[in-house]
Amino acid sequence: MSEQVFINNDFADVMLNRKSVRRFDPEFKIDREEIKEMIAQACSAPSACNLQSWHFVIVDQASGKEKLKDVTMPFNYPQLETASAIVFVLGDTHSHKVYREVWTKYCQEGRISEEKLQEVFSTFLPLYENASQEFLEKDATLDGAMVAMQLLLVARSHGYEANAWAGYKAADLVTALDKDSQRYIPIMAISIGKADETPIDSARYDTESLISVLD
Amino acid sequence: MSEQVFINNDFADVMLNRKSVRRFDPEFKIDREEIKEMIAQACSAPSACNLQSWHFVIVDQASGKEKLKDVTMPFNYPQLETASAIVFVLGDTHSHKVYREVWTKYCQEGRISEEKLQEVFSTFLPLYENASQEFLEKDATLDGAMVAMQLLLVARSHGYEANAWAGYKAADLVTALDKDSQRYIPIMAISIGKADETPIDSARYDTESLISVLD
Repeated sequence: MSEQVFINNDFADVMLNRKSVRRFDPEFKIDREEIKEMIAQACSAPSACNLQSWHFVIVDQASGKEKLKDVTMPFNYPQLETASAIVFVLGDTHSHKVYREVWTKYCQEGRISEEKLQEVFSTFLPLYENASQEFLEKDATLDGAMVAMQLLLVARSHGYEANAWAGYKAADLVTALDKDSQRYIPIMAISIGKADETPIDSARYDTESLISVLD
Repeated sequence: MSEQVFINNDFADVMLNRKSVRRFDPEFKIDREEIKEMIAQACSAPSACNLQSWHFVIVDQASGKEKLKDVTMPFNYPQLETASAIVFVLGDTHSHKVYREVWTKYCQEGRISEEKLQEVFSTFLPLYENASQEFLEKDATLDGAMVAMQLLLVARSHGYEANAWAGYKAADLVTALDKDSQRYIPIMAISIGKADETPIDSARYDTESLISVLD
């Protein structure tokens, strides 16, 4: 990917000065193609066995937002109503079903050896094919949270602000998003737009209290 | 935090060129203070209700690595044995127990109003105090994965490479790390060091197949 893709390419600023913005300029629009580009960039995140157990639903129209009001907790209405776009990050518990196909393609493209391919097929694949729903959901949750984290950073690198939220009825969200609730699980929503508030300067604990050492 | 903290401050390079490095130069050392600094920087990640439900165990000595061999799957021995340091990211399911204390401090420091404080205490706090173990673990998993994602990026910004792995016996890991397994849950391990291999150029799916729109 091109190195010169970001308006704000200052990593320290992008990461260290990121704060959760909850109220956005409701008149401000972001082109849907740019939203898709941000998602593609965030997908450079790693995932367990490169399964990429994530899916994204973009909501950037008043009509789509209206459909989600019933499943959104009122305290998250500002994030739903004022953002230029909300990207719902879902976890895909069926991602292993395309596993064989994708890794075979890597091998054909010369990215991995035939030996590596057979190793993958004999070790990781049976693990997922025989996994419990709980295991698949845990993996998809980890993958989804990591790609969501990158999306929050990418939003800033594009000159916007963002916020992660999960104040929705989790049991009803996936269906409200018109996706298969047997396959997908909610991870979090990322609202992106032009800030219309000064965010809370939320503190962090002293890291010393959060670190242990095993000598 | 200072803006000029990173050797590599090129966000596009840090994020888009990040690949999972599994074999490191085993002779290469990173000062433990720098590991702690990287963790502190990664902790700029957001968390549900700013609970920061994460904890970190640094393993950077041969003796500590040796203690973890029994709980590590052999296919992850390179990540364990050759990294300068492994940071085990744990989820903290008791983080809400310091909730009242921390938010009261924010209020005293003028970061949030008394009104906001009372709102937090009457809405979010009971949610966590009455939450199921499953809910607390889900929240801690999301928080932990997000901070781990930032740590992977921070490692590159410090000029190192890294890798996230979870090939350990999850039921035994926390105890092996000398932490309370009733309180902490394993999220993932982040190995950091100087690369001693050319990582796999792992592909990503065409994003179009991963994006839906709700109009």
